[in-house]
Amino acid sequence: MKYKILNTDNIIKYLKSIENIKKYFGEDNLIAKEIGDGNLNFVFLVLSCDDSSKALIVKQAVPYIRCLGEEYLLKKERMTYEIRSLRIFGTISPDFITKLYFTCESMSVLVMQYLDNHTILRGSMIDKIKYNKFSDHISTYLSKVLFHTSSLYLSSEQKNELQDKFNGNNEMCKLTEDYVFTFAFMQHPSNDTANIKNNPLANKIFDDTKFKEKVLQLKYIFMNSTDCLLHGDLHTGSIMLNTNETYIIDSEFAFVGPFGFDIGALLANLTSAYIHHTIVSKDEEYKKWILKTIYDILTMFKNKFLQLWQQTKDSALITDGFVDNTTLKNYKNSFIQNIIRQSVGFAGCEMIRRIFGAAGVDEIRGIKDKNSKDKAEILVFDIGRKFVIEYNDINSPEDIISTITKCESLTKNIT
Amino acid sequence: MKYKILNTDNIIKYLKSIENIKKYFGEDNLIAKEIGDGNLNFVFLVLSCDDSSKALIVKQAVPYIRCLGEEYLLKKERMTYEIRSLRIFGTISPDFITKLYFTCESMSVLVMQYLDNHTILRGSMIDKIKYNKFSDHISTYLSKVLFHTSSLYLSSEQKNELQDKFNGNNEMCKLTEDYVFTFAFMQHPSNDTANIKNNPLANKIFDDTKFKEKVLQLKYIFMNSTDCLLHGDLHTGSIMLNTNETYIIDSEFAFVGPFGFDIGALLANLTSAYIHHTIVSKDEEYKKWILKTIYDILTMFKNKFLQLWQQTKDSALITDGFVDNTTLKNYKNSFIQNIIRQSVGFAGCEMIRRIFGAAGVDEIRGIKDKNSKDKAEILVFDIGRKFVIEYNDINSPEDIISTITKCESLTKNIT
Repeated sequence: MKYKILNTDNIIKYLKSIENIKKYFGEDNLIAKEIGDGNLNFVFLVLSCDDSSKALIVKQAVPYIRCLGEEYLLKKERMTYEIRSLRIFGTISPDFITKLYFTCESMSVLVMQYLDNHTILRGSMIDKIKYNKFSDHISTYLSKVLFHTSSLYLSSEQKNELQDKFNGNNEMCKLTEDYVFTFAFMQHPSNDTANIKNNPLANKIFDDTKFKEKVLQLKYIFMNSTDCLLHGDLHTGSIMLNTNETYIIDSEFAFVGPFGFDIGALLANLTSAYIHHTIVSKDEEYKKWILKTIYDILTMFKNKFLQLWQQTKDSALITDGFVDNTTLKNYKNSFIQNIIRQSVGFAGCEMIRRIFGAAGVDEIRGIKDKNSKDKAEILVFDIGRKFVIEYNDINSPEDIISTITKCESLTKNIT
Repeated sequence: MKYKILNTDNIIKYLKSIENIKKYFGEDNLIAKEIGDGNLNFVFLVLSCDDSSKALIVKQAVPYIRCLGEEYLLKKERMTYEIRSLRIFGTISPDFITKLYFTCESMSVLVMQYLDNHTILRGSMIDKIKYNKFSDHISTYLSKVLFHTSSLYLSSEQKNELQDKFNGNNEMCKLTEDYVFTFAFMQHPSNDTANIKNNPLANKIFDDTKFKEKVLQLKYIFMNSTDCLLHGDLHTGSIMLNTNETYIIDSEFAFVGPFGFDIGALLANLTSAYIHHTIVSKDEEYKKWILKTIYDILTMFKNKFLQLWQQTKDSALITDGFVDNTTLKNYKNSFIQNIIRQSVGFAGCEMIRRIFGAAGVDEIRGIKDKNSKDKAEILVFDIGRKFVIEYNDINSPEDIISTITKCESLTKNIT
């Protein structure tokens, strides 16, 4: 179908022309509301007027960045990669991906399950809600997806097909290269200039050559590794959940890249939530829950990933019989340790870029009291910087937790 | 044009239908001889009967492995990647790539300059010929091609386009994964079974877990890095030269992969030539020339690569102004050191797989005297194994030379 932009006037007619959607809603009368508060796309909630239990989400990409306006061009084909990645994630790990009712690459549109009693993790963490199944869910999702899209599981041919499907998503990768690894660490018009002016932290970052050398290493890894299929933007705003369910959404940044990138984004944003509560709510119990969540996610990820590997005898990398089990075990352990290290490095970049870069996070940039915000930023800086500078020596979930708490006590002593 | 297999009967008519070839030969009468001794493809020499100065080479891929027969399927599209890579290499480094007169991806055919007074480097090194411009030529070729096809030079978009062009060559990459990194190090029917039987070295290799763990690391790097465009099979049989000119041929394995792979293949084959003369000719002067050649290639590669980098202010990786010059210099030096290390690891795999794997090299497998061949294989094994096991600590051309000569003296003392 030829591309046209959907709106509340034409969307019902469009949906009624789609067999699978007709099957879902039957002959019901429908209404559509635009509910998107996302930066990039249009999102509609479509409801049945006759049966309040029926509702779907329609998401469409437009050929520009929605929140900036039509002159900020961004190819609508990003939706192609969201569609493709959701199909793959959903096949590998169906519990954590919304049900898809319809997708169309040429219309850059997808129609999916409406999550009506789930909240965005970022907000719920500011509100101190504990989701106790989250660590188990997200570690299952990460271990399954990362493992099953890598050459530790796929054949060479399958891996190659996967790369072919996502190689075209370079425009979104370029955004990450610029906004996660570059602009936020130098003078750049896209930065949060109000915050940079007269801010000693800004000069510290911009002149921190030791930090920047490591950032270049990590950016290089981001650009030149093809380990597995990634979500590409797995912060706490890309996760919707409730007590029993967890869903991963918004995967338009999906690409084949380094193992540690999604874990790193998650680690960064959980750590930012921890810092928020260190400075703002000072709720020691909730802070403890966050640290435990970080620890559990990483430990469970490690174990689940190794378990999946244990069940796989033949892959693009390892031919059955090539090497004895003890050697293989050593190899796998050092492999997973590298993933942890790399995640820590990526997490550090993601944390620090959120201080001065174009896109902040609510739990830090949203702190209203100037003094508290400054303190929070110092702690983000200290932990993030340590993550980046020492990522090659931070080898385990234990190391990560102790890096966070050590920085916290040092900062407490100074301020 | 629809694909058809060329032979000495139909090739002249085919060539006469091509504008550019007609322009070259005019109305001359032509004859064609099949001259290919390659493993994969058909190669014809086409000569003018009227003007002996006019001759061209026609190379065509068939949908099977020529030397094994029609039942050994191998997609003829490998020629597509040879054509594409030669065009890119020829643009970046024209002095070392044969002139192309015609290429056709659908016919899997290319017509190129005939190298009438050049020899294959492998044979000329067995014959102890010194080509004194070779180090300078090949280091120029390698530094230019590797640098200019990497994200140290290209923009993200250009790099992505490049990957798109070569991602499809996975069938050839799979051959490398199997034959360079896997089968030769385990019991496998494709191996040189006559040589394996009752050979203590074979058991040593097959049981060498320390070696295999490193091989897995290197194979993983081979499969999951997208540093730059590589020739993919740069052994001494892929180089034709004379006193003044050097040409790189046969790039059907071209792919976007790790920086060290081509340098490693070259290092491996030069070292094998050194071992040949250590055991067979014992010509100390020629041996010295080989070591000097290895040293010069690596040193010049390093310097030329850094010089090209020095001239590049903006690339996918580095935004001008991101970091000060001193930091950048450190970063670049450690970057190039990593390339050297990686090359050493790849060289070790390539050397050892040539002992027992399907494809041997003349300078080792071709040694007639059984006793000498055994001795040569021991030295290949010792140096290759050290290259693989210690690649992360072999940091410089000096380290490489001393690794070779130390292994040589140790083996001399034992045998």
